[in-house]
Amino acid sequence: MEHFMKAALEEARAGLAEGGIPVGAVLVHRGVILGRGRNRRVQLGSAVLHGEMDALENAGRQSAAFYRESTLYTTLSPCAMCSGAILLYGIPRVVVGENRSFLGEEAWLRRRGVGVEVLQDEACIALMAGFIEARPALWHEDIGNV
Amino acid sequence: MEHFMKAALEEARAGLAEGGIPVGAVLVHRGVILGRGRNRRVQLGSAVLHGEMDALENAGRQSAAFYRESTLYTTLSPCAMCSGAILLYGIPRVVVGENRSFLGEEAWLRRRGVGVEVLQDEACIALMAGFIEARPALWHEDIGNV
Repeated sequence: MEHFMKAALEEARAGLAEGGIPVGAVLVHRGVILGRGRNRRVQLGSAVLHGEMDALENAGRQSAAFYRESTLYTTLSPCAMCSGAILLYGIPRVVVGENRSFLGEEAWLRRRGVGVEVLQDEACIALMAGFIEARPALWHEDIGNV
Repeated sequence: MEHFMKAALEEARAGLAEGGIPVGAVLVHRGVILGRGRNRRVQLGSAVLHGEMDALENAGRQSAAFYRESTLYTTLSPCAMCSGAILLYGIPRVVVGENRSFLGEEAWLRRRGVGVEVLQDEACIALMAGFIEARPALWHEDIGNV
């Protein structure tokens, strides 16, 4: 597995070990991880810190020039909120671990010129499938379904 | 001015007094303010806590049923990130103080069935216009422009 997706998957697994929702992400600037993150709904009672948002938050305040040289790696297809954050900051490329468990706003991202690459990585798929089967109510809360 | 927009504007003004970006929001559930928020970029070094996001965060973890009976009031037109959060959680109605200083993703929200009402409130417009004139670099950082 690609190095950066492996780092995102480590974040997702750390989240699961904390009792959280196993989605992880890393923001990579010119080949260096500047922000790592994972979904914090359970850990912090957060409604906004999905994995991608947590990675952006942990990367700190940055300029548009920084974001435009960055790639976001996320273990799961980004939802409307996370896709909106990608567009707000003009991140030009997103690498997605898988979109079988959940298909976010990839079409919207592509229409707005973001390069979206989907790996359909088996480890990412297995992690989410196992979690969704084990904790369906928590998962549906996270994506605004119940 | 409508009571809830007045509360959002109080948040925006409190943000300005802290040296922050003066955008405020409140999440209202069945006529009661459940979350108040303001842009926290300066105060917390946050890249994700726009006023709307901060209001959602302060409302805590909620069910989809809760969001579907809620209205978000925000002093400024919601950007792609905040609009995405509105769609993620299925908030059916958004009241916007003004969209002259910045036009967010109102068209996307409407296409997805969200009711968007724009007040073009003079106090909201004056607050943002004064801020953008005084702190253009900070403002453009917040919307991913520079």
